Amino acid sequence: MTAPERIWTAALIVIGDEILSGRTQDRNVSQIASWLNVQGIRLREVRVIGDDDEAIVEAVNALRARYDYLFTTGGIGPTHDDITVDAIARALGVEVEIDPQARAMLSGYYETRGGLTEARLRMARVPAGASLIENRMSGAPGIRHGNIFIMAGVPHITAGMLDSLTGTLEGGRPVLSAQIGCWVAESEIADILAATERAHEGCQIGSYPFFREGKTGANFVVRSTDPQLLERCVAALCEALEQGGWPVVPGGI
Amino acid sequence: MTAPERIWTAALIVIGDEILSGRTQDRNVSQIASWLNVQGIRLREVRVIGDDDEAIVEAVNALRARYDYLFTTGGIGPTHDDITVDAIARALGVEVEIDPQARAMLSGYYETRGGLTEARLRMARVPAGASLIENRMSGAPGIRHGNIFIMAGVPHITAGMLDSLTGTLEGGRPVLSAQIGCWVAESEIADILAATERAHEGCQIGSYPFFREGKTGANFVVRSTDPQLLERCVAALCEALEQGGWPVVPGGI
Repeated sequence: MTAPERIWTAALIVIGDEILSGRTQDRNVSQIASWLNVQGIRLREVRVIGDDDEAIVEAVNALRARYDYLFTTGGIGPTHDDITVDAIARALGVEVEIDPQARAMLSGYYETRGGLTEARLRMARVPAGASLIENRMSGAPGIRHGNIFIMAGVPHITAGMLDSLTGTLEGGRPVLSAQIGCWVAESEIADILAATERAHEGCQIGSYPFFREGKTGANFVVRSTDPQLLERCVAALCEALEQGGWPVVPGGI
Repeated sequence: MTAPERIWTAALIVIGDEILSGRTQDRNVSQIASWLNVQGIRLREVRVIGDDDEAIVEAVNALRARYDYLFTTGGIGPTHDDITVDAIARALGVEVEIDPQARAMLSGYYETRGGLTEARLRMARVPAGASLIENRMSGAPGIRHGNIFIMAGVPHITAGMLDSLTGTLEGGRPVLSAQIGCWVAESEIADILAATERAHEGCQIGSYPFFREGKTGANFVVRSTDPQLLERCVAALCEALEQGGWPVVPGGI
């Protein structure tokens, strides 16, 4: 018998009135989710909250203890509505301080862009005890404090920060997935899906219906950390669908 | 003196492994947020969780007491991974039962589509005491139970359910917003934003920077429930920006 696999987990807090008002379509959930999976870390929960001090404090304290890693996006810019650093410092019970390295980064970045004003210096403020996450896209760095990773809200800047964190966080085995598609109403093959999942412990099968080109179809995603098990489960599902008279489209539709 | 305005609030639980794995880009947060605002209801919090019974029970019980309305999306289809109804019934401490009206709807819908199988009948299951939300796009209805609204995960089906709920929920004054844009780094005008917001109590100003066509710019969104106040705040912001030498683009860039 092998020891049960250690599963590494994460949560994400998306901070921003612009998401809750519907003005802005969030892009960070899917990019952080995909990135985490490659690191062998499972994203278990996301909370979207507004630019509100109390809401940030509550969410940070609820989630940082519960998961191995906690990411936040948004609210670390130079304007009055950027309150993430202050709120997280309050959640942690530490002071906010100017990080000398962040100040030097910003100073260099803004040297040819009008200089380091007081507003820009706000982006060098960190909860005491933090380290920095490199920002490859613009001047202001992200911030790491213990298991908390404080990232930008603008998706391409977040992407650069994730890139600089790649390979630095301990994780387990990534969840592998394979997708197949079928021109079938999912309700017609619900029994096949359930039976196939039951017969392959350690695999989950998700069913994602769609209506396209005037026809009903569904994609089925099989997930597992075990590549052989995944392959067997997909093969069994394909066989059952084909036998039922539903041709399978490998890779999905 | 007028009494303080009653503010109506809502939360949303997005249920689905496919969102947390990064496979699927959520579209329901922004569409439900925008719709709620038109109803005069503020979306205060979103949680994204997996197809996990305990996680659903916990989130439902945390949020249904805290906000006027609670919406959920996802997990109400015919397959084994559709567990939302059972989990919400458990959260409420009620049984799951077949709703006769839902059964009749499904029966009609599937009459020419292969008949009402056992899997399809799953979509007539509701927490005891529920009423139905019309589904104008396909057979299976949404479900209302008290202040909880259980909606589909597929965005165009959710849209149809929202449409049928339009005007039926009590709300307050909607948040109005106006956007202007400027080719300026937000850090250069952070003081103007903060001072303008301070001078117009009841308005919030959000700053949304971007980098486009090789240039730095930002859009500023002013929000208020008071149309005159909103207009004055926008006018003051435009004047301050123009005086600083930054031409304003009405409506945003």
